[in-house]
Amino acid sequence: MQITILLYPDFETLDVFGPVEIFGKVPDWRIQYYSQNGGLICNQDNISISTENFASIPQNIDTLFIPGGPGTRSLIQQTDFIQQLKSLAQKSKYVLTVCTGSALLAKTELLDGRKATSNKRVFDWVKTSSAKTKWIEKARWITDGKYYTSSGISAGMDMALAFVQNRTDKNTAEKIATRIEYHWQQDSQQDAFCSNNQLN
Amino acid sequence: MQITILLYPDFETLDVFGPVEIFGKVPDWRIQYYSQNGGLICNQDNISISTENFASIPQNIDTLFIPGGPGTRSLIQQTDFIQQLKSLAQKSKYVLTVCTGSALLAKTELLDGRKATSNKRVFDWVKTSSAKTKWIEKARWITDGKYYTSSGISAGMDMALAFVQNRTDKNTAEKIATRIEYHWQQDSQQDAFCSNNQLN
Repeated sequence: MQITILLYPDFETLDVFGPVEIFGKVPDWRIQYYSQNGGLICNQDNISISTENFASIPQNIDTLFIPGGPGTRSLIQQTDFIQQLKSLAQKSKYVLTVCTGSALLAKTELLDGRKATSNKRVFDWVKTSSAKTKWIEKARWITDGKYYTSSGISAGMDMALAFVQNRTDKNTAEKIATRIEYHWQQDSQQDAFCSNNQLN
Repeated sequence: MQITILLYPDFETLDVFGPVEIFGKVPDWRIQYYSQNGGLICNQDNISISTENFASIPQNIDTLFIPGGPGTRSLIQQTDFIQQLKSLAQKSKYVLTVCTGSALLAKTELLDGRKATSNKRVFDWVKTSSAKTKWIEKARWITDGKYYTSSGISAGMDMALAFVQNRTDKNTAEKIATRIEYHWQQDSQQDAFCSNNQLN
């Protein structure tokens, strides 16, 4: 299994590296980092990480992974990026998003008619990305066909473990959670942060 | 507040980026990444991140942060690194470790006579780093003077939130946990992973 991670300036740190911690513990799963033009990608936590460009992405994508973050605000308006994202998602076996990454994916129209979720703090903004997506506010994560979308930031880790469970088995996912000393919330419909829409 | 993060080859991903996600949400806290010789530092999850070298670290260190990871096994035997780490830790106002990062710190002898904890899976190995450290196995994290040590990987996030609480206030830490949709385990003595010493 190859995990193809898409990065962009001002991606959210834990959206990426929570799931990466988990995927990296599955035998034979490999992780690669890409951005539109390649090179070093920086974010608000002063991280500067090496990426290859979109042209380097292999034709057959196992799993496409799209994080959220402050950078989505401008990225969602870049038609060329959204078109490239659509093309990549269409040829991916699975597509996973964390937080506002689902807004980017919804903008491609590939979530039209499908259920999806996102960060609770900015849910109203996310919904503007696509009126045809069936947005579910109360969910830790949502699976609809090949698409997995998760709520804010930390929720990506619970989704990642569920994805590992679905591709391998529950025992493998539980062993990873124990190994990384993480309390895995296994119920996707339990969402303690749903009614919380504070703005700070 | 300046957070000075020490990286090395094969650091554990979430040890670093879980706490970074939290520190980055505190107003006026800044994060910098350093390694012994600077440049790109890579790990087992294929992350390649930019760092400055140890010589670039400012004289007055607010908070020194030491992650764990597979790389600690060889690093702990490198006398020059341990000496540099000791010097950096001595001039830091606070020193935080996650997972096997506490073995590196203990090796400097700065934890002699102090309480500390670490990852449960490799606790026996960690204890060999210093017989004079009072190793506490059952703890999510331990605070002793200016030293904060946490258990394995995900435990670093709970410790990071406690550190934010201690430096600011509880409300600030709780708001960050809510913002990142993270279930903060606030009780440092509760440790569900303590009796788990499986080897895989």
